[in-house]
Order: sequence, then structure tokens, then C-alpha cells
Amino acid sequence: MEPVFEFPLELAKRGPGSRVQRLHQQLRAAIIERRLIAGTRLPSTRRVAQAYGIARNTVIAAYDLLMAEGFIVTRAGAAAEVANVATQTGMSGRKRQPRLAPRPPAMDWRKAGPAEATERSSITRGFELGVPEHRWFPSDVWRRALMRASSPALADAFGYPAPEGRPLLRAAIAQHVGYARAVVCTDNDVVVTSGAQQAFDLLARVLVTRGQTKVAVEDPGYPPLRAAMSAAGAQLVPICVDEQGLIVDRLPPDVRIVCVTPSHQFPTGVAMSLARRRALLDFAQRHGAVIIEDDYDGEFRYGTQPLDALQMLDRNEKVVYVGTFSKSLFPALRLGYIVAPPWLIEALTEAKQSADNGGNVAIQEAVARLILDGDLARYTRRMRKRYARRRDTLLAAIDRDLGNWLIPVEPGAGIHLYARYRDRRQAQRIASLTAQYAAGARDAGSFLLERRASASASAGIAFGFGCIDEEEIEASIARLARAIGRA
Amino acid sequence: MEPVFEFPLELAKRGPGSRVQRLHQQLRAAIIERRLIAGTRLPSTRRVAQAYGIARNTVIAAYDLLMAEGFIVTRAGAAAEVANVATQTGMSGRKRQPRLAPRPPAMDWRKAGPAEATERSSITRGFELGVPEHRWFPSDVWRRALMRASSPALADAFGYPAPEGRPLLRAAIAQHVGYARAVVCTDNDVVVTSGAQQAFDLLARVLVTRGQTKVAVEDPGYPPLRAAMSAAGAQLVPICVDEQGLIVDRLPPDVRIVCVTPSHQFPTGVAMSLARRRALLDFAQRHGAVIIEDDYDGEFRYGTQPLDALQMLDRNEKVVYVGTFSKSLFPALRLGYIVAPPWLIEALTEAKQSADNGGNVAIQEAVARLILDGDLARYTRRMRKRYARRRDTLLAAIDRDLGNWLIPVEPGAGIHLYARYRDRRQAQRIASLTAQYAAGARDAGSFLLERRASASASAGIAFGFGCIDEEEIEASIARLARAIGRA
Repeated sequence: MEPVFEFPLELAKRGPGSRVQRLHQQLRAAIIERRLIAGTRLPSTRRVAQAYGIARNTVIAAYDLLMAEGFIVTRAGAAAEVANVATQTGMSGRKRQPRLAPRPPAMDWRKAGPAEATERSSITRGFELGVPEHRWFPSDVWRRALMRASSPALADAFGYPAPEGRPLLRAAIAQHVGYARAVVCTDNDVVVTSGAQQAFDLLARVLVTRGQTKVAVEDPGYPPLRAAMSAAGAQLVPICVDEQGLIVDRLPPDVRIVCVTPSHQFPTGVAMSLARRRALLDFAQRHGAVIIEDDYDGEFRYGTQPLDALQMLDRNEKVVYVGTFSKSLFPALRLGYIVAPPWLIEALTEAKQSADNGGNVAIQEAVARLILDGDLARYTRRMRKRYARRRDTLLAAIDRDLGNWLIPVEPGAGIHLYARYRDRRQAQRIASLTAQYAAGARDAGSFLLERRASASASAGIAFGFGCIDEEEIEASIARLARAIGRA
Repeated sequence: MEPVFEFPLELAKRGPGSRVQRLHQQLRAAIIERRLIAGTRLPSTRRVAQAYGIARNTVIAAYDLLMAEGFIVTRAGAAAEVANVATQTGMSGRKRQPRLAPRPPAMDWRKAGPAEATERSSITRGFELGVPEHRWFPSDVWRRALMRASSPALADAFGYPAPEGRPLLRAAIAQHVGYARAVVCTDNDVVVTSGAQQAFDLLARVLVTRGQTKVAVEDPGYPPLRAAMSAAGAQLVPICVDEQGLIVDRLPPDVRIVCVTPSHQFPTGVAMSLARRRALLDFAQRHGAVIIEDDYDGEFRYGTQPLDALQMLDRNEKVVYVGTFSKSLFPALRLGYIVAPPWLIEALTEAKQSADNGGNVAIQEAVARLILDGDLARYTRRMRKRYARRRDTLLAAIDRDLGNWLIPVEPGAGIHLYARYRDRRQAQRIASLTAQYAAGARDAGSFLLERRASASASAGIAFGFGCIDEEEIEASIARLARAIGRA
């Protein structure tokens, strides 16, 4: 008997279900996977029956099922044909789809820059902001921790997790922020999140009443935080920053939430002064506002300023502290946390439960081990030294090569450095050359919510030094300086 | 010189920062960690200076900093004392905290039952719903995959992930749902989520307009889905289910979203009939509604019903398919996915980005490997057989021992079995004994949104058989039968 023609399948003689079901399923799979493409004429039922040695009624029944499901079509007097499943599924009715809920502005600031050519997945990231070095990450230690954390002997590591986070990790985080950032808290004050972004999102869900709550944000500031607040229906109130941080005097009395980056303002790099910290805490106390402290890279401190977390000064349960392991370990981990006052914990736990019902258990367990065994502290210490060298190299290079155009701000913490324009009239030209010659570095303009005159005080460029080595820093800055000098 | 009294610290002679800073930080750490408790009188600055061999001014400066921060207090004429940091942070001002945003009803249905004593972290789960077996999970395969996925050689595994999911996993899921559930899709139609719960949450964000959008849900139905919809401000419209699934005729024409579990209704266990599936698709097409298909345990099918995913029949981009690895792998993984029509993908990606900026990369990569290497399919096949045996054992046991009171519904898929009350007047008595003698099993009443007469048609008890072996099934059902017979 001749082989079965255009049919790219062998009929399994055995298996679950009846022969009709098996034939039906195999034909359907072939159509879905495009092994049988649209328009292919199917052999007659008689021919299939003969070829496979099965009853013709079996084939007819299978064809009928396929027809009922729309996978094959028949025209009067013609053989059955494979239907155009892809077109039916992929193209029709686009106009008649229901309206989507109102959407907040897009938040992918990494793509937002005019000459930003960096792919998210690219390896060479140059001066990209907020991306730490991973070359010296202790992968062996991490993988061992991950192995232990996914041991089948860990009996409770398979079921549904506690939404607020694994107890061991909550305890480890409480210890970690106490040591590293002088944050005052116990295990019960910690809610584990999927990165700082989910912390913002959960806080927005819990604290923002749609269309009513005014949320003050630093301007320039961190776009993804604004996106989370907007998504929950907040009214954003941009507040200028100067060399002491957020200008507290400019807060309208009716803002209910104030979002700040006191350790290392994003992107202008200043640390909020003690006077401003006190003024902000006073403001919150007087007006019943909540302060969200985003401490995104405060672990890397360079000694000049003794300022710890703002949370430490809070005596009225006004400050919610948000931390992340994206900088101290790596971003792909997607692990962050909220240290919140007791009155917020239950609401945050419920919000987390509704949002995703808790995070991956093995990852949480492994990070807890890394903290409790001291590996995180060791790695942070090591990286602080390396980042300090990069910071110093970058400071010196900007001073030496770009001093005519930029005034670098010495960062007391973190993994990016900010440099102000000497002459705002040159800003656009320098920004455009920077985008071209110092990939990843960003003009603060892209972090502004309002383009107003007063913002000019903080106009400048942010250079990440998390994932660029000293040699490349010097070469890139020199190249940029030549380009600016030439133009 | 005498040792330094009540001071539980050694002053580090070297280290970052000045001596003042080091002393200040060590004292502060001691207070935060309660090594120095509230009320402890501090030794005089002179005494500390002598004990440590440092200048008295250094000690005075450190004390001043601690005082400024509120960690120590002084009273006129008395020595400095450690302040009550815990009280200040933990107790004050509870009344004056800002109001929280309106919260949806709590969703932790696992804790909701009247006699539900099961701890989330408990190991013995009896008839608990939605919890799969993990004893035969191929931990060695999984750990190898996880090792490969966290290799330092995987250059793009450290940075920020693509919010919509890792490309390899999106491709693997498209292949998996094509084979296993006949879902018609390509890689680009897949959005990876943190469990099915986040899928519901993202869909609610994107499709629900607060206070306006009517969302039809099965009644009885799955509480966490309702919680996600409520959190986004949906108006829930409960729709009865009968032995063919959701009663499509009862849908009001103005619902915009219809949420269904067509493979295995939660909790009543019926598969939606083909007629109802067609009617539902018609409804969506006529009224411009979207259907959310929650296929939470459809991988485990027992052969009697040839019904695949509802999505397969959709020709108008109306069905959004939600899948999860919580049942086919394990819940603590927190990995799920949405297969959405093209018009939804961009909005979902943005919502995911705002929600948590993407999931853990190593977990995604490892699951992709498990799928592509065929391990998931193998494991599913193996577990299907084991679950089938448990299902048969449970069916037979209920028939034999509880046949006077309950009519079991043969489940065509999934890992729980539903049994209807023969006599509704006995329902309460049986439910209460069930809670006592068959831990984890749940009366459908706890899944009802509306307690109305029409719901009585589906009144009964759901028994999970995911994590209970045959012996225990028989023993528990026999025990329950004795208790019911006795009472």
C-alpha cells in the first residue's frame, strides 16, 4: 500500500482514548503546529482508512469533530481542506474588541531616551542606570543556596506560600536592614515583594483612592514609581529637588503620600540633608501624610555622609521603607521588600495575596540563607570597594575631561553619579552627544514630569557606574569630551 | 583598667569612617538590636573615653549624634539613657494614621471554612483543594534545570527581565498548551505571570474600569479570582452553574467579562458542554464581551470527555486563556501564564511592568527547559495515572460508604471530586461532620457569592485528591461515613 501522502503523522496504535479520539487529536495537533498548513486538501476518509488499516467510520467521526471545531472546512463537492486557523485567530475583529480600561502612561524609561539603543537583554550596558555588576557575584554560593532551598526534604517548600513572604526571609531582611541601613523593625514589619516595583504597586493599591489621593513625587524622579502610582489612580504632584533633596516647603498640605529617595536622589544623586529629613517628618505628622522611602541603592555608601535611612528617624509610623535586592544581588532575582508600620501590614498582605498570592519559595529561602550566612554582607562589602573605585575614576575623568561643561556631584551612596551642566544653553547639545558617545548615560530631562524653569537648577546627566569598568569609564569620557570639544 | 561595664561592644580600631562614626554606629546597632535595652544608663563620656583609649570629644560627638537621632535621651542632671525605640516606633499614633484605600473582601478561602484548622504550611493536607502531590516530583531533574538556569555563563540572566516573560519560556508555553490543551497560539500570544492569581489581577487591571465594568463569575466559583476582579473595581455578577456548567442564558447582556472554568468547574467539577461553549462564544461575539478561561487543572484528564480548552473554538479573539504550573508542577513555583489575543498583549505587558517589572529569570528559564526537554509532559503523564487511581478510589469509596447521602460527580479532569447532597435538609449536618472528619474537603457554600434557592441544584462537597493517597482516602471516607451514620 502506498505511503500516506501529505499526512505528516503516524497513527499511534495505542494510547489513551478511542481510535477516533487519537486520530482527531493527532490531526488537530498537526494543524495547530502548522505541519498541515491552511488550504491543504485532506485525503478522502476511504483512503485514510485503507492506509492506516482502520474502519472508515472512525475516520469520518474524526473529520466530523475537526469540522465542528473549525479546523477543517468542506465545500460542496470538494475534498475537505485545512482551515486557516491562524488567520481566524490572529486577525479578525480587531476593531470590535472591547475597550480597555484607561491606561497610565508607559513606564519603560529604559527605552525612553531619544538615542537609547540599548537592548534590555544586551550585555554591554555602558553607563546604564541602576544595573549592577554581576561579574563577581558568588554564583557558586548562590547556586548552593538555591540547591538547598529546592531540596525535596524541605517539606513546606512545595505548597502555597505565605503571601507576606517566607518567615525565614522576613527575619533575615529585618536583620539585614537593621545592620546595613539602621532601619528599626522586626520580622513582622516586613512584606516580601517581587522587586521594589511591586512594593510601589502594593503601596499604591493600599494607600491611593482613585482620583482622590495626591501623591508628591520628586521631580526629576523615578518613572516606574510614578507609573505604579498613576495606575492606582493617584494625582501626581511633582516637587522640585535641589542640592538638599526634595524641597519640603513646596509640598501642598493636601498631599497624602510623599515619595522620596533620601539616601541617593534619583537621578540627581544628592543625599537629603538632616534638616530636610526632619522637615519632611514634621510635614507628615502635621498633615497626616505617609512617606515612602525608596532606598534603591543605599547599601553602597562611600563614607562621606553619615546619613542612614530616613525610616530610622521616624517616631510616628509615618515612613514606609522600600528596599530591593536588585542592586545588592541582581535585578533578575526580582526580590524586594517593604518595611511598614504595623497599621499597614494586614492591608499590604491582602494586596499581595490578591496581586499574586506570594512569591517563589525557593528564591526566598535561598536569599534568606545568603543573608543569614553572611554572604550578602561579604559581597556588599566587596562590591562597595569596587564601586568606590569606579566612582572615583568617573569623578576624576569628568573633572579632568568634561570640567568645562559639567560639574560632577560627589555621590555619597549608590551606583550612579550625577553631573550638572555648567551652562544650560549647551544642555541639549551635550545631552545629544552623551547619548551617542556614552551609551546608557541619561539627561535628567527624561526623568522630569514638568519641564519648568525651576527644574533647571538640577539639570544635568546621570552616569551609571554599576556595570562599567574603570578602563571603559576613562575611554568613554575621553571620547565624549573629544566629541563635545570638536562640535 | 576595668572592662567597660554594661557596654556589650568592642570599639573597632579600624574600619570605614571616622572614630566618631564608628562609635556612633556601633552604639546605634546595639540599641536597634536590643543589646542595649531601653532605660539602660550610659556610662559617662569620660569613662568611655578612658576605657577605649580615645578622645573624650569623640565620645561626646557620638553621643550627640545618637541624641539627635532619638536613640538616647538625657534628663537634667542625670546620665544619658537608651531611649525606648521600640515603643516609639511600634505603638504611637495608631489612631491618627491616614485612611486606607477601600479594600475588597479578603480572599484567603483556604482559611475561610468554619472548622478549617489546616495551617498553610502544614504537611498533612488531607482533601485540601488545589494542592497537588509533590512526592514524585522529579526534584533531581528540576534542580539540574535550575542549576543550568543560574549559571554565570547565562549572560543575560542577571539584568532586568522582559516583563512579558523570557522568550524561551514563552515559546515553551506556546508549545505546551498546543500539545496538552489544543490551545491555538504562538510565542507572541503568551504573557508569563506569577501564578494564575497574577493573571487574573493583570486582566482585571487591563479590562475593568472601576465602578463600571460588570464581570460575570460562576456561582459557586473560585474566590481569589473574584477578589482580583473586585480589587480592580469590577461589579461582580454571580451566575449559577448546573451539570453543563455556567448557565449562559442567565448572562445579562451588559456584562463585559465572563469568567469560567470550562474543563473542570470550580468547585462543582462539571465540564462545560459543547452546546454551552458555543452559546458562550456566541454571547461574547454578540455583546462584545471577553471570556476569561481559567484552566487551572485541565492537564489531568481522565479520558471520558474529549473536551479541550474553550479557547480552541474561539474564532473572534474573545477568549483569554489562563494557565498555571501550580498543579502540573507545584504551587510554590508561582508561575502561570496568559494566552491572549493580539489586541490585549501590549496592555498586559505594560500592566505586568507596572505591577512587578517581570518575574524571576532563573525560574522561568528552568521551567522552559523542563517543557522543552519533555520532562513536564512525562511528569504529567505519570501523575495523571496516579491521580486517576485516587479519583477512582474516591469515587468508589463515596459510592460505597456515603451513597445514602452524597452523589459523586465523575470528574473528567483535575484533582478534586465533587459530590452533591442527596437531601439538602441534611446538608448542614453533613458539611459540619465533613469538616471534622475529612479535613480539607469543603462545602460548596463557602464558594457561593449569593445564597439563593437556585444554587441548591449544585449544593455539595468538594474533595481534593491531589495530596492524599488511596489508603488515606478509604480510611477517611469510612470514618466520615461512620460519623454521619451515627449522628
